[in-house]
Amino acid sequence: MDHVKGGVTAPHGFLASGVSCGIKKRGKDLALIVSKRPAAVAGTLTRNAVKASCVLWAAPLLKKGTARAIVANSGNANCCTGRKGSEDTGRIVRQAAFLLGIRPTEILVASTGVIGVPLPMDRVNNGIRLAVKELSPIGSLSAAEAIMTTDTRSKEIAVRFNHAGHSVKVGGIAKGSGMIAPNMATMLAFLTTDAKAAAPVLRKAIRSAVEESFNAITVDGEMSTNDMVLLMANGASGTPPIRQGTKAFRDFFEAIRVVCRYLAYEIVRDGEGVTRLMTVEVSGTQTNTAAMRVAKQIANSVLVKTMVAGRDPNWGRVAAAAGASGVPVHTSRLTIWLGKTVVFRRGEPTRLKRETLLREVDHPEIRIGIDLGSGKGSARLLSADLTEGYIQINAKYTS
Amino acid sequence: MDHVKGGVTAPHGFLASGVSCGIKKRGKDLALIVSKRPAAVAGTLTRNAVKASCVLWAAPLLKKGTARAIVANSGNANCCTGRKGSEDTGRIVRQAAFLLGIRPTEILVASTGVIGVPLPMDRVNNGIRLAVKELSPIGSLSAAEAIMTTDTRSKEIAVRFNHAGHSVKVGGIAKGSGMIAPNMATMLAFLTTDAKAAAPVLRKAIRSAVEESFNAITVDGEMSTNDMVLLMANGASGTPPIRQGTKAFRDFFEAIRVVCRYLAYEIVRDGEGVTRLMTVEVSGTQTNTAAMRVAKQIANSVLVKTMVAGRDPNWGRVAAAAGASGVPVHTSRLTIWLGKTVVFRRGEPTRLKRETLLREVDHPEIRIGIDLGSGKGSARLLSADLTEGYIQINAKYTS
Repeated sequence: MDHVKGGVTAPHGFLASGVSCGIKKRGKDLALIVSKRPAAVAGTLTRNAVKASCVLWAAPLLKKGTARAIVANSGNANCCTGRKGSEDTGRIVRQAAFLLGIRPTEILVASTGVIGVPLPMDRVNNGIRLAVKELSPIGSLSAAEAIMTTDTRSKEIAVRFNHAGHSVKVGGIAKGSGMIAPNMATMLAFLTTDAKAAAPVLRKAIRSAVEESFNAITVDGEMSTNDMVLLMANGASGTPPIRQGTKAFRDFFEAIRVVCRYLAYEIVRDGEGVTRLMTVEVSGTQTNTAAMRVAKQIANSVLVKTMVAGRDPNWGRVAAAAGASGVPVHTSRLTIWLGKTVVFRRGEPTRLKRETLLREVDHPEIRIGIDLGSGKGSARLLSADLTEGYIQINAKYTS
Repeated sequence: MDHVKGGVTAPHGFLASGVSCGIKKRGKDLALIVSKRPAAVAGTLTRNAVKASCVLWAAPLLKKGTARAIVANSGNANCCTGRKGSEDTGRIVRQAAFLLGIRPTEILVASTGVIGVPLPMDRVNNGIRLAVKELSPIGSLSAAEAIMTTDTRSKEIAVRFNHAGHSVKVGGIAKGSGMIAPNMATMLAFLTTDAKAAAPVLRKAIRSAVEESFNAITVDGEMSTNDMVLLMANGASGTPPIRQGTKAFRDFFEAIRVVCRYLAYEIVRDGEGVTRLMTVEVSGTQTNTAAMRVAKQIANSVLVKTMVAGRDPNWGRVAAAAGASGVPVHTSRLTIWLGKTVVFRRGEPTRLKRETLLREVDHPEIRIGIDLGSGKGSARLLSADLTEGYIQINAKYTS
């Protein structure tokens, strides 16, 4: 597998654009991704019980498994907007369908921004017109820019692998935890591929990849109402269909994993106020689910996060967070690492010199390891520190 | 019921002291509370699976239901300190027992401070000697000061009510969310009363009171390894025993509630970096437990907390947090209040003027109300904002 230039327009047969239409105060705020030919689609949607109107629209389309376009806007989540909100989603897909000459049910919508404020539909309509006009085979970067909110940089990647003598590409763009006005930490990622693959194959691949990438990160423990990861496959590479259980599937899945992991990593690295990353590795639980529960409790603990921010080897906070997770913890079986150094071994502190500990936390990426000594479950979670920068972004600038 | 001066030494037959023995860099760090006569005791201990050695010591004593003294230190949690940690707890109770002329099993220990660091036992032993020497019938304030960590003020209260023609008093002291070096948000509260009441009666009263006071607050969502609430009753008022189901019990319970609520409120108000309180009121869930789950998700959401800090009426964050709680939420039945103003009514935003909303959040205490429209469950939680002050306390000063 090799890296190639571009993002969602690197695979053949995809066009994209990103335009500014005034939903945000400044900058691009409407993105369009279109497959020139019918495409299969799969994706994952937020598990938040409060769902944006675009998420409700996407659910049946993802079940059907075909789509040709994604309209995505930043600056407004179109969530908790009542009846007008769902009507607006209908207007968006009808207008885009008319201009693109496809059916409304071939169009997915994604939104990110403030909750509870109606969409300015005049501007959105203008934006869609403009975006259709500007569609381009090198439009990925514009689209990546148009979905940004408080992200400090755009995020795109593309990779290729060989299949049946041809090159197959997978590309993606994403936006991270941010707010405009100010708003939920909303996560969107769109992937495209010119592989030919049926929707069930895509589903299998994207769900597994999401589980270990986007579902294995946390910036602030907040689940958005608009989270959406989508993967469109249009077969434009001309290669035979990818089927599960084959080498082609393994290569395809690996390509999707690389794209998802890169975008997920970039989202955390560009998280609001983030200065330091932390990887939480949990082992020795009875199940992987229990391990992830412990990992999340640690990674979302504001005391662990501020400890990472302050480069403080105060590992007792890790023990306390693990104990608060609801997963059974026996202190006498507990082992804790900072970096590669064991600081607590089966119930006894190792009493190292403070300088040794300080060295382990003085990195841009800190590893926190914890073993519960009670089973073979394990999990890994990428997270980040909590700094005054986060507070400033989310408290100082009112909507 | 009336308020009276003092804290744990307001009830008859209790002595207390607070001394400085060098566990902390400066200030008082060892408190002693002693009943002159045998007393019944009840309490609640942290539910964290990682428990400090003093918590493990307290558990069987609280089952037995008798105790005469509490030794409490700040500056060190004596948690995750292995075998030495439990041996140190043994040394503390044996030494205090010897000096007080009572049995070691009549002595409870409470600690708060850094986790994973062994207790400096020479200093602790000196502290206990000094504390016994300084025991005084007006020693409550000294004891309240000696359990403080990052608290900016000491917390004590006492009330009285009439029972069988006599005055019965209930007093208490507490410490709040803080750290020394830096450390877990640890909560300790000690209550005394000169009522005569058997341990089961005390248990019933303290558990109910704790449920609606200390268990209904959150500063940073962190469960400590050392949380402890203790209530000692020595009968020194000379009044007949208080029995459940009587008017005396109701008066007694009310007095305990007032003391617990006051101390809980003070803990939040003095929370690290806190500038604004928020009360989260949840209704319309199927059970009270579900309501508390929603309330905790909202109150611990860093986005809701920073919204309160920034006086930003961005109520969409409240909806998103409720939806992330795991409790079933139907957006079309959801109603949300900021202060007394309905901002979202059964699925529709009410679209008020921004000035109206701004008025509702420009208070030192903000009310957030949410009704899920799905049942009769309800809960109320007192919480606070998240500010740069919290980050500074917990990240900037390394241990």
